[in-house]
Amino acid sequence: MDDEKETGRVEAFSDGVFAVAITLLILNIQLPSAQTFKNDQAMWSFFGDQWPMLIAFVTSFATIGVMWLNHHKLFKHIRYVDNTLILLNLLLLLTIVFIPYPTALLAQQYIHYPSQHAAAIIYSGTNILMAVGFNMLWRYASHKNHLLSKNADKEEVEAITRQYRFGPLLYIIIFALAWFSTLASIALILFLAIFFALPFRSLFPANKQIKTNKDLEQASQ
Amino acid sequence: MDDEKETGRVEAFSDGVFAVAITLLILNIQLPSAQTFKNDQAMWSFFGDQWPMLIAFVTSFATIGVMWLNHHKLFKHIRYVDNTLILLNLLLLLTIVFIPYPTALLAQQYIHYPSQHAAAIIYSGTNILMAVGFNMLWRYASHKNHLLSKNADKEEVEAITRQYRFGPLLYIIIFALAWFSTLASIALILFLAIFFALPFRSLFPANKQIKTNKDLEQASQ
Amino acid sequence: MDDEKETGRVEAFSDGVFAVAITLLILNIQLPSAQTFKNDQAMWSFFGDQWPMLIAFVTSFATIGVMWLNHHKLFKHIRYVDNTLILLNLLLLLTIVFIPYPTALLAQQYIHYPSQHAAAIIYSGTNILMAVGFNMLWRYASHKNHLLSKNADKEEVEAITRQYRFGPLLYIIIFALAWFSTLASIALILFLAIFFALPFRSLFPANKQIKTNKDLEQASQ
Amino acid sequence: MDDEKETGRVEAFSDGVFAVAITLLILNIQLPSAQTFKNDQAMWSFFGDQWPMLIAFVTSFATIGVMWLNHHKLFKHIRYVDNTLILLNLLLLLTIVFIPYPTALLAQQYIHYPSQHAAAIIYSGTNILMAVGFNMLWRYASHKNHLLSKNADKEEVEAITRQYRFGPLLYIIIFALAWFSTLASIALILFLAIFFALPFRSLFPANKQIKTNKDLEQASQ
Repeated sequence: MDDEKETGRVEAFSDGVFAVAITLLILNIQLPSAQTFKNDQAMWSFFGDQWPMLIAFVTSFATIGVMWLNHHKLFKHIRYVDNTLILLNLLLLLTIVFIPYPTALLAQQYIHYPSQHAAAIIYSGTNILMAVGFNMLWRYASHKNHLLSKNADKEEVEAITRQYRFGPLLYIIIFALAWFSTLASIALILFLAIFFALPFRSLFPANKQIKTNKDLEQASQ
Repeated sequence: MDDEKETGRVEAFSDGVFAVAITLLILNIQLPSAQTFKNDQAMWSFFGDQWPMLIAFVTSFATIGVMWLNHHKLFKHIRYVDNTLILLNLLLLLTIVFIPYPTALLAQQYIHYPSQHAAAIIYSGTNILMAVGFNMLWRYASHKNHLLSKNADKEEVEAITRQYRFGPLLYIIIFALAWFSTLASIALILFLAIFFALPFRSLFPANKQIKTNKDLEQASQ
Repeated sequence: MDDEKETGRVEAFSDGVFAVAITLLILNIQLPSAQTFKNDQAMWSFFGDQWPMLIAFVTSFATIGVMWLNHHKLFKHIRYVDNTLILLNLLLLLTIVFIPYPTALLAQQYIHYPSQHAAAIIYSGTNILMAVGFNMLWRYASHKNHLLSKNADKEEVEAITRQYRFGPLLYIIIFALAWFSTLASIALILFLAIFFALPFRSLFPANKQIKTNKDLEQASQ
Repeated sequence: MDDEKETGRVEAFSDGVFAVAITLLILNIQLPSAQTFKNDQAMWSFFGDQWPMLIAFVTSFATIGVMWLNHHKLFKHIRYVDNTLILLNLLLLLTIVFIPYPTALLAQQYIHYPSQHAAAIIYSGTNILMAVGFNMLWRYASHKNHLLSKNADKEEVEAITRQYRFGPLLYIIIFALAWFSTLASIALILFLAIFFALPFRSLFPANKQIKTNKDLEQASQ
């Protein structure tokens, strides 16, 4: 019973950080100054120019949202907590909290200088750190299963380990790409966020979808 | 027992996002610059001009608050969680998080150019997306009851489905109205927020009010 | 068991709003512009002038903190939740969320024009609304005990009702005072926050301190 | 059962405040104005100058993160809650919430006037208050064990008390140092944050690491 509480507070704190970080993204979409729009036409054309900002907002929202989904997936299996896990979790949250900054930078720079790569490089670099953070957390927790729940589904655990192997590599490729094409790297990060969110059973055959408890219930009948 | 936890973290994360989004609204009411008020009279007349800002703040607060109430109502019946539900929930939260932006835009534009419609159109458009988000979440969860609790009150479930059918339509009408009258569309959104919050038994005869557990207790005696 | 969950989510959402509102207060203490301080002396004298800002920050922190403590006290006794209670709770949270604005306004105006009363009037006016919000919530919940826990301590419930009778009145007096003395009204609000936080047994004889569970345990032995 | 809930809400509120405070740190890293970077080179050299800001961000993140870890450690042993504990907890949270301000001030001043000490003094002064806050909370709760859980590990409780004795003293030394060297005091605060996070068994022989529940499970076999 006590171990429930242990993970409980780590999850609650992490949920809080994820929730605040994902909501603060809206602050990056700064209001135009009051005098900007003399008429409706002016506002529409302003938003016509602002779409990179909106895409960056949705990309980051999707990224943090999917990272929360992944965090949730991992802690479904993690049951025990020690100091090192808490510190690795904090390291991961540091990258999550940092995401709004490169996002805002990217949106701002892309509008004014679409050909600039520095912002895209910093943005995709942060994504590498995030992927590394997830790997460290999971590898530590799942090492000899020492922090996992006893009745954690072995296949699922292995599937996560297998899937996570690709994460950092993919983000490094995107990072390299950012030196050449800003737009391509943003598009790929958005694609990757969706990719990690959807359960691709065919690609990772041993990777089963999150079992709904309904399934379990039916299976036990 | 495990399924409690599953929904638990989705609800905790959503509560966090709702709580942050509703509190960030206050940041839209920007402080006047320090030198604005030479005397008390100047401050009173300033706030006399600022009332559209305050109304927009209260409208948005009511909107997000009532959306939380609705989210709470739905998850009272939802017991199982899968990937798709989490993603639909994220999509819904995206519209919730976005609300402060069109609100601030509307308040700002209304003060300076009361006859402009673009801001009201964007604001009511966001409300359509929110209503659609709620519908998708509920339709997916309640489809053949596959994610609902076994002992979910059938009548209540149907009443929600019936009530939700009207939501997007009503918001589309308000959206259309925004092209003609900014004030009318804001007033209607505020009215609708109150409408969805109050339990109109007479209008939706099968739609029972949230049963207090006290009622249930008395009923079981 | 289900009723725990009902109150649980209302409390979790409220906790989130309180936590965000109390933390956002720090944003009111705006950084001086980078070029302000040529040397250490300049910084010290700047902060010498900024103390009203710091006092307003501490006052608001104490206010929201104590309001959380009161909210916590009430929900210790409230067990059942219905639509009206959620809406009254939202109304109360609206005043909590609004607090940072009049606080910042007061701090800013007090620094520049110490003799102005408009800001102090708005600030203490918000405090009246907050006290009224608490009263409505408690009166509705405790009316014929219909939303209270069955084994709620009768004496404690009555003591809260008695203590709350004074709240709005006291804040109205402070509100009246704000028309004459800004400093006196701020000082009194700070005093009142401390007053409501401390358990004054002698003043409200029937009002027992929050019983620690230790006491209950010892009592049951 | 009821006592779980009591501590539960205090922890949930505190978690919220910690989560918001740690996430708001990112707002201190302000975006450069849109026109700053004509090319990639300009951005890289800008960030070359901005590293003190980034170090301050990481330092504060580590500080708040480790403070959360400590808060978590204490409340593992605390079971009963009374008014005084809640107020001491609020006092501690006040210093946590305040941390982003001196951090931003320090980062800003260090970039422009590296030889200035006022910002470092304010920053390390806040750290003293935080250490004092933790000590007051723990001393009150552990005084004659009156708010601790009955089955709290006696050795662990004593180890915390012993370790906490050093905290304020160390921060006072850093505070004194800040009058002479800004960089040294920041470095030491970062070091101390890591020091308090890691379990130094050899230094505090009686201070056992947080026991994972796995250990307990194995011990009971």
